Amino acid sequence: MIPESIQKFIDSFSKLPSLGPRLVTRLAFFLLNLDRATLNNLVSALNGLKELDRCGQCFFLKNGNEKLCDICSDQKRDHDIIAIIEKETDLISIEKTGRFKGNYLILGELNERGVLESIQKLRLKQLKDRINKEMGGKIKEIIIALNPNTFGDFVADLIRQEFKNLAEKITRLGRGIPTGGEIEFADEETLNSALERRN
Amino acid sequence: MIPESIQKFIDSFSKLPSLGPRLVTRLAFFLLNLDRATLNNLVSALNGLKELDRCGQCFFLKNGNEKLCDICSDQKRDHDIIAIIEKETDLISIEKTGRFKGNYLILGELNERGVLESIQKLRLKQLKDRINKEMGGKIKEIIIALNPNTFGDFVADLIRQEFKNLAEKITRLGRGIPTGGEIEFADEETLNSALERRN
Repeated sequence: MIPESIQKFIDSFSKLPSLGPRLVTRLAFFLLNLDRATLNNLVSALNGLKELDRCGQCFFLKNGNEKLCDICSDQKRDHDIIAIIEKETDLISIEKTGRFKGNYLILGELNERGVLESIQKLRLKQLKDRINKEMGGKIKEIIIALNPNTFGDFVADLIRQEFKNLAEKITRLGRGIPTGGEIEFADEETLNSALERRN
Repeated sequence: MIPESIQKFIDSFSKLPSLGPRLVTRLAFFLLNLDRATLNNLVSALNGLKELDRCGQCFFLKNGNEKLCDICSDQKRDHDIIAIIEKETDLISIEKTGRFKGNYLILGELNERGVLESIQKLRLKQLKDRINKEMGGKIKEIIIALNPNTFGDFVADLIRQEFKNLAEKITRLGRGIPTGGEIEFADEETLNSALERRN
Protein backbone atom coordinates (compact mmCIF):
# COMPACT_ATOMS: atom_id res chain seq x y z
CA MET A 1 0.00 0.00 0.00
CA ILE A 2 2.94 2.33 0.70
CA PRO A 3 4.60 3.09 -2.65
CA GLU A 4 7.81 1.15 -3.09
CA SER A 5 10.12 4.17 -3.11
CA ILE A 6 8.75 5.33 0.24
CA GLN A 7 9.15 1.85 1.71
CA LYS A 8 12.72 1.71 0.43
CA PHE A 9 13.44 5.10 2.01
CA ILE A 10 11.95 3.98 5.33
CA ASP A 11 13.83 0.67 5.29
CA SER A 12 17.21 2.22 4.48
CA PHE A 13 17.09 5.26 6.72
CA SER A 14 15.58 3.59 9.76
CA LYS A 15 18.72 1.46 10.00
CA LEU A 16 20.68 4.57 10.95
CA PRO A 17 21.31 5.28 14.65
CA SER A 18 18.64 7.37 16.45
CA LEU A 19 16.27 7.11 13.47
CA GLY A 20 13.41 4.73 14.19
CA PRO A 21 10.84 3.70 11.56
CA ARG A 22 8.18 6.06 12.95
CA LEU A 23 10.43 9.09 12.73
CA VAL A 24 11.67 8.07 9.27
CA THR A 25 8.09 7.57 8.02
CA ARG A 26 7.14 11.07 9.20
CA LEU A 27 10.33 12.33 7.62
CA ALA A 28 9.53 10.65 4.28
CA PHE A 29 6.19 12.43 4.01
CA PHE A 30 7.72 15.68 5.10
CA LEU A 31 10.30 15.34 2.31
CA LEU A 32 7.58 14.46 -0.18
CA ASN A 33 5.89 17.74 0.59
CA LEU A 34 9.05 19.76 -0.05
CA ASP A 35 9.68 21.50 -3.32
CA ARG A 36 11.97 19.78 -5.79
CA ALA A 37 14.89 22.19 -5.25
CA THR A 38 15.07 21.54 -1.50
CA LEU A 39 14.92 17.80 -2.06
CA ASN A 40 17.69 18.05 -4.65
CA ASN A 41 19.72 20.03 -2.18
CA LEU A 42 19.41 17.24 0.41
CA VAL A 43 20.40 14.63 -2.16
CA SER A 44 23.48 16.61 -3.08
CA ALA A 45 24.35 17.18 0.60
CA LEU A 46 24.20 13.44 1.20
CA ASN A 47 26.13 12.77 -1.98
CA GLY A 48 28.75 15.31 -0.94
CA LEU A 49 29.84 13.07 1.91
CA LYS A 50 31.31 10.77 -0.70
CA GLU A 51 33.86 13.41 -1.69
CA LEU A 52 35.59 13.13 1.67
CA ASP A 53 38.67 11.16 2.54
CA ARG A 54 40.51 10.48 5.76
CA CYS A 55 43.53 12.54 6.65
CA GLY A 56 46.47 10.13 6.56
CA GLN A 57 47.97 11.73 9.65
CA CYS A 58 45.19 12.28 12.21
CA PHE A 59 42.41 10.26 10.49
CA PHE A 60 39.89 13.08 10.68
CA LEU A 61 38.09 13.85 7.42
CA LYS A 62 39.44 16.01 4.67
CA ASN A 63 38.35 17.10 1.21
CA GLY A 64 39.36 14.48 -1.35
CA ASN A 65 41.59 16.89 -3.26
CA GLU A 66 43.72 17.99 -0.31
CA LYS A 67 46.74 16.22 1.12
CA LEU A 68 46.02 16.65 4.82
CA CYS A 69 43.03 17.86 6.83
CA ASP A 70 42.62 21.53 7.75
CA ILE A 71 43.98 20.93 11.25
CA CYS A 72 47.10 18.97 10.30
CA SER A 73 47.95 21.40 7.52
CA ASP A 74 47.45 24.51 9.69
CA GLN A 75 50.93 25.95 10.23
CA LYS A 76 49.69 28.03 13.16
CA ARG A 77 48.88 24.98 15.24
CA ASP A 78 51.36 23.26 17.51
CA HIS A 79 52.23 19.95 15.83
CA ASP A 80 54.31 19.00 18.84
CA ILE A 81 51.23 18.41 21.00
CA ILE A 82 48.95 15.57 20.02
CA ALA A 83 45.62 14.69 21.60
CA ILE A 84 44.64 11.06 21.16
CA ILE A 85 40.85 10.85 20.94
CA GLU A 86 38.27 8.21 20.14
CA LYS A 87 36.03 9.77 17.55
CA GLU A 88 35.43 12.65 15.15
CA THR A 89 32.69 14.18 17.28
CA ASP A 90 35.12 14.33 20.23
CA LEU A 91 37.41 16.41 18.03
CA ILE A 92 34.56 18.76 17.22
CA SER A 93 33.68 19.17 20.90
CA ILE A 94 37.30 19.92 21.80
CA GLU A 95 37.67 22.36 18.89
CA LYS A 96 34.58 24.19 20.10
CA THR A 97 36.33 25.09 23.34
CA GLY A 98 38.90 27.01 21.25
CA ARG A 99 41.48 26.16 23.94
CA PHE A 100 43.42 23.43 22.21
CA LYS A 101 45.84 24.37 19.46
CA GLY A 102 47.66 21.10 18.93
CA ASN A 103 46.98 18.20 16.60
CA TYR A 104 44.92 15.05 17.01
CA LEU A 105 45.04 11.34 16.48
CA ILE A 106 41.66 9.70 16.08
CA LEU A 107 41.86 6.16 17.37
CA GLY A 108 38.29 5.04 16.66
CA GLU A 109 35.80 4.03 19.34
CA LEU A 110 37.20 1.58 21.85
CA ASN A 111 35.47 -1.76 21.83
CA GLU A 112 34.22 -3.33 25.03
CA ARG A 113 36.58 -6.26 24.97
CA GLY A 114 39.40 -4.14 26.33
CA VAL A 115 41.71 -4.87 23.41
CA LEU A 116 42.77 -2.56 20.62
CA GLU A 117 41.57 -3.44 17.16
CA SER A 118 44.19 -3.91 14.48
CA ILE A 119 43.36 -0.59 12.80
CA GLN A 120 43.80 1.14 16.19
CA LYS A 121 47.17 -0.53 16.75
CA LEU A 122 48.17 0.56 13.24
CA ARG A 123 47.27 4.18 13.92
CA LEU A 124 49.30 4.23 17.12
CA LYS A 125 52.23 2.59 15.38
CA GLN A 126 52.09 5.14 12.59
CA LEU A 127 52.18 7.97 15.14
CA LYS A 128 55.18 6.34 16.82
CA ASP A 129 56.99 6.06 13.47
CA ARG A 130 56.15 9.64 12.62
CA ILE A 131 57.53 10.92 15.93
CA ASN A 132 60.68 8.89 15.39
CA LYS A 133 61.27 9.73 11.75
CA GLU A 134 59.83 13.19 11.26
CA MET A 135 59.68 14.81 14.66
CA GLY A 136 63.11 14.16 16.12
CA GLY A 137 62.12 11.21 18.27
CA LYS A 138 60.31 13.23 20.92
CA ILE A 139 57.36 15.63 21.00
CA LYS A 140 56.24 18.06 23.68
CA GLU A 141 53.08 16.40 24.90
CA ILE A 142 50.61 13.63 24.29
CA ILE A 143 47.18 14.33 25.77
CA ILE A 144 45.12 11.20 26.23
CA ALA A 145 41.56 12.35 25.68
CA LEU A 146 39.82 8.97 25.79
CA ASN A 147 36.53 8.63 27.61
CA PRO A 148 37.01 8.18 31.36
CA ASN A 149 35.81 4.59 31.75
CA THR A 150 37.40 1.16 32.20
CA PHE A 151 38.28 0.74 28.53
CA GLY A 152 39.64 4.27 28.31
CA ASP A 153 41.74 3.70 31.44
CA PHE A 154 43.12 0.48 30.05
CA VAL A 155 44.12 1.98 26.71
CA ALA A 156 45.49 5.07 28.46
CA ASP A 157 47.90 2.86 30.45
CA LEU A 158 48.93 1.13 27.27
CA ILE A 159 49.61 4.44 25.52
CA ARG A 160 51.61 5.75 28.48
CA GLN A 161 53.71 2.61 28.29
CA GLU A 162 54.28 2.69 24.54
CA PHE A 163 54.97 6.40 24.21
CA LYS A 164 56.90 7.00 27.41
CA ASN A 165 60.13 7.81 25.55
CA LEU A 166 58.43 9.67 22.73
CA ALA A 167 56.92 12.62 24.56
CA GLU A 168 58.19 14.96 27.26
CA LYS A 169 54.93 14.52 29.08
CA ILE A 170 51.87 12.36 28.71
CA THR A 171 48.73 13.79 30.31
CA ARG A 172 45.09 12.84 30.53
CA LEU A 173 42.02 15.07 30.60
CA GLY A 174 41.10 16.08 34.17
CA ARG A 175 38.26 14.30 35.91
CA GLY A 176 35.77 15.74 38.36
CA ILE A 177 32.29 17.09 38.81
CA PRO A 178 31.07 18.47 35.47
CA THR A 179 30.22 22.17 35.45
CA GLY A 180 26.53 22.47 36.27
CA GLY A 181 26.53 18.96 37.76
CA GLU A 182 25.40 18.23 41.31
CA ILE A 183 27.61 16.73 43.97
CA GLU A 184 24.63 14.86 45.41
CA PHE A 185 24.23 12.88 42.20
CA ALA A 186 27.89 12.35 41.31
CA ASP A 187 28.94 8.70 41.45
CA GLU A 188 31.58 7.61 43.93
CA GLU A 189 34.31 7.28 41.31
CA THR A 190 33.75 10.81 40.07
CA LEU A 191 33.73 12.21 43.61
CA ASN A 192 36.96 10.39 44.36
CA SER A 193 38.59 11.93 41.28
CA ALA A 194 37.21 15.33 42.18
CA LEU A 195 38.68 15.11 45.70
CA GLU A 196 42.05 13.83 44.50
CA ARG A 197 42.32 16.52 41.87
CA ARG A 198 40.99 19.38 44.00
CA ASN A 199 42.64 22.70 43.28
CA MET B 1 37.57 23.17 10.67
CA ILE B 2 34.71 20.86 9.73
CA PRO B 3 35.10 20.02 6.02
CA GLU B 4 32.64 21.91 3.86
CA SER B 5 30.68 18.87 2.69
CA ILE B 6 30.04 17.81 6.29
CA GLN B 7 28.94 21.31 7.22
CA LYS B 8 26.60 21.39 4.23
CA PHE B 9 25.14 18.04 5.25
CA ILE B 10 24.61 19.24 8.83
CA ASP B 11 23.06 22.53 7.71
CA SER B 12 20.64 20.93 5.26
CA PHE B 13 19.52 17.94 7.28
CA SER B 14 19.18 19.69 10.62
CA LYS B 15 16.43 21.82 9.09
CA LEU B 16 14.23 18.71 8.92
CA PRO B 17 11.72 18.07 11.72
CA SER B 18 12.99 16.02 14.70
CA LEU B 19 16.59 16.25 13.45
CA GLY B 20 18.62 18.68 15.54
CA PRO B 21 22.21 19.67 14.68
CA ARG B 22 23.70 17.36 17.33
CA LEU B 23 21.90 14.30 16.00
CA VAL B 24 22.73 15.23 12.40
CA THR B 25 26.41 15.73 13.25
CA ARG B 26 26.58 12.28 14.82
CA LEU B 27 24.72 10.95 11.80
CA ALA B 28 27.19 12.56 9.39
CA PHE B 29 30.16 10.82 10.98
CA PHE B 30 28.26 7.57 11.17
CA LEU B 31 27.57 7.83 7.42
CA LEU B 32 31.21 8.67 6.75
CA ASN B 33 32.22 5.42 8.37
CA LEU B 34 29.87 3.36 6.19
CA ASP B 35 31.08 1.53 3.13
CA ARG B 36 30.48 3.19 -0.22
CA ALA B 37 27.70 0.77 -1.27
CA THR B 38 25.53 1.50 1.78
CA LEU B 39 26.00 5.24 1.30
CA ASN B 40 25.04 4.92 -2.38
CA ASN B 41 21.98 2.98 -1.33
CA LEU B 42 20.89 5.83 0.96
CA VAL B 43 21.43 8.38 -1.79
CA SER B 44 19.30 6.35 -4.17
CA ALA B 45 16.60 5.85 -1.52
CA LEU B 46 16.43 9.61 -1.01
CA ASN B 47 16.52 10.20 -4.75
CA GLY B 48 13.72 7.67 -5.22
CA LEU B 49 11.30 9.97 -3.42
CA LYS B 50 11.48 12.21 -6.48
CA GLU B 51 9.82 9.52 -8.61
CA LEU B 52 6.58 9.88 -6.70
CA ASP B 53 3.52 11.85 -7.67
CA ARG B 54 0.26 12.62 -5.94
CA CYS B 55 -2.80 10.57 -6.77
CA GLY B 56 -5.22 12.97 -8.46
CA GLN B 57 -8.14 11.43 -6.61
CA CYS B 58 -7.18 10.96 -2.94
CA PHE B 59 -3.88 12.95 -2.98
CA PHE B 60 -1.89 10.13 -1.40
CA LEU B 61 1.36 9.28 -3.18
CA LYS B 62 1.68 7.04 -6.19
CA ASN B 63 4.44 5.88 -8.50
CA GLY B 64 4.98 8.42 -11.25
CA ASN B 65 4.09 5.96 -14.01
CA GLU B 66 0.69 4.94 -12.64
CA LYS B 67 -2.60 6.75 -13.06
CA LEU B 68 -3.97 6.41 -9.54
CA CYS B 69 -2.52 5.25 -6.23
CA ASP B 70 -2.72 1.61 -5.15
CA ILE B 71 -5.72 2.30 -2.94
CA CYS B 72 -7.83 4.23 -5.45
CA SER B 73 -7.10 1.71 -8.19
CA ASP B 74 -7.85 -1.33 -6.02
CA GLN B 75 -11.11 -2.78 -7.37
CA LYS B 76 -11.66 -4.79 -4.19
CA ARG B 77 -12.04 -1.66 -2.08
CA ASP B 78 -15.32 0.11 -1.51
CA HIS B 79 -15.13 3.35 -3.48
CA ASP B 80 -18.48 4.38 -2.05
CA ILE B 81 -17.03 5.04 1.39
CA ILE B 82 -14.55 7.86 1.72
CA ALA B 83 -12.56 8.78 4.80
CA ILE B 84 -11.47 12.41 4.90
CA ILE B 85 -8.14 12.62 6.70
CA GLU B 86 -5.50 15.24 7.36
CA LYS B 87 -2.25 13.63 6.39
CA GLU B 88 -0.50 10.69 4.75
CA THR B 89 0.68 9.23 8.03
CA ASP B 90 -2.95 9.13 9.24
CA LEU B 91 -3.73 7.00 6.19
CA ILE B 92 -0.93 4.63 7.10
CA SER B 93 -2.14 4.32 10.69
CA ILE B 94 -5.70 3.58 9.54
CA GLU B 95 -4.48 1.07 6.94
CA LYS B 96 -2.52 -0.73 9.64
CA THR B 97 -5.77 -1.56 11.47
CA GLY B 98 -6.83 -3.55 8.39
CA ARG B 99 -10.43 -2.62 9.26
CA PHE B 100 -11.12 0.08 6.70
CA LYS B 101 -11.71 -0.96 3.11
CA GLY B 102 -12.93 2.32 1.62
CA ASN B 103 -11.07 5.15 -0.06
CA TYR B 104 -9.51 8.31 1.30
CA LEU B 105 -9.32 12.01 0.71
CA ILE B 106 -6.21 13.65 2.14
CA LEU B 107 -7.02 17.21 3.04
CA GLY B 108 -3.62 18.32 4.33
CA GLU B 109 -2.93 19.41 7.90
CA LEU B 110 -5.43 21.92 9.22
CA ASN B 111 -3.92 25.26 10.06
CA GLU B 112 -4.55 26.90 13.40
CA ARG B 113 -6.46 29.84 12.03
CA GLY B 114 -9.60 27.75 11.72
CA VAL B 115 -10.00 28.38 8.00
CA LEU B 116 -9.43 26.01 5.13
CA GLU B 117 -6.56 26.82 2.83
CA SER B 118 -7.34 27.21 -0.85
CA ILE B 119 -5.79 23.86 -1.74
CA GLN B 120 -7.99 22.20 0.90
CA LYS B 121 -11.11 23.88 -0.46
CA LEU B 122 -10.11 22.70 -3.93
CA ARG B 123 -9.75 19.10 -2.80
CA LEU B 124 -13.18 19.12 -1.16
CA LYS B 125 -14.70 20.72 -4.25
CA GLN B 126 -13.13 18.09 -6.47
CA LEU B 127 -14.59 15.32 -4.29
CA LYS B 128 -18.00 16.98 -4.52
CA ASP B 129 -17.75 17.17 -8.31
CA ARG B 130 -16.64 13.57 -8.50
CA ILE B 131 -19.58 12.37 -6.41
CA ASN B 132 -21.94 14.38 -8.58
CA LYS B 133 -20.51 13.45 -11.95
CA GLU B 134 -19.06 9.99 -11.54
CA MET B 135 -20.77 8.44 -8.55
CA GLY B 136 -24.45 9.11 -9.15
CA GLY B 137 -24.71 12.12 -6.89
CA LYS B 138 -24.60 10.19 -3.62
CA ILE B 139 -22.17 7.81 -1.93
CA LYS B 140 -22.69 5.44 0.98
CA GLU B 141 -20.65 7.14 3.66
CA ILE B 142 -18.21 9.89 4.41
CA ILE B 143 -16.10 9.25 7.50
CA ILE B 144 -14.60 12.40 8.92
CA ALA B 145 -11.29 11.25 10.38
CA LEU B 146 -9.85 14.62 11.32
CA ASN B 147 -8.01 15.02 14.60
CA PRO B 148 -10.40 15.55 17.53
CA ASN B 149 -9.56 19.15 18.40
CA THR B 150 -11.11 22.58 17.88
CA PHE B 151 -9.89 22.92 14.29
CA GLY B 152 -10.96 19.39 13.45
CA ASP B 153 -14.39 20.01 14.97
CA PHE B 154 -14.79 23.21 13.00
CA VAL B 155 -13.89 21.64 9.65
CA ALA B 156 -16.01 18.58 10.45
CA ASP B 157 -19.08 20.84 10.82
CA LEU B 158 -18.22 22.47 7.54
CA ILE B 159 -17.91 19.12 5.76
CA ARG B 160 -21.20 17.88 7.25
CA GLN B 161 -22.83 21.00 5.86
CA GLU B 162 -21.32 20.82 2.40
CA PHE B 163 -21.77 17.10 1.84
CA LYS B 164 -25.13 16.58 3.54
CA ASN B 165 -26.87 15.72 0.26
CA LEU B 166 -23.94 13.80 -1.19
CA ALA B 167 -23.69 10.89 1.25
CA GLU B 168 -26.23 8.62 2.92
CA LYS B 169 -24.42 9.13 6.17
CA ILE B 170 -21.62 11.28 7.45
CA THR B 171 -19.83 9.91 10.50
CA ARG B 172 -16.87 10.87 12.61
CA LEU B 173 -14.32 8.65 14.36
CA GLY B 174 -15.45 7.72 17.89
CA ARG B 175 -13.96 9.53 20.83
CA GLY B 176 -13.20 8.15 24.25
CA ILE B 177 -10.53 6.82 26.52
CA PRO B 178 -7.72 5.36 24.39
CA THR B 179 -7.04 1.68 24.92
CA GLY B 180 -4.38 1.40 27.60
CA GLY B 181 -5.14 4.93 28.75
CA GLU B 182 -6.05 5.77 32.32
CA ILE B 183 -9.34 7.34 33.36
CA GLU B 184 -7.57 9.24 36.11
CA PHE B 185 -5.49 11.13 33.58
CA ALA B 186 -8.10 11.62 30.87
CA ASP B 187 -9.01 15.27 30.34
CA GLU B 188 -12.55 16.43 30.99
CA GLU B 189 -13.45 16.68 27.31
CA THR B 190 -12.36 13.11 26.64
CA LEU B 191 -14.25 11.82 29.69
CA ASN B 192 -17.37 13.67 28.54
CA SER B 193 -17.13 12.03 25.12
CA ALA B 194 -16.49 8.64 26.68
CA LEU B 195 -19.59 8.99 28.86
CA GLU B 196 -21.79 10.24 26.02
CA ARG B 197 -20.66 7.47 23.70
CA ARG B 198 -20.71 4.66 26.25
CA ASN B 199 -21.78 1.34 24.82
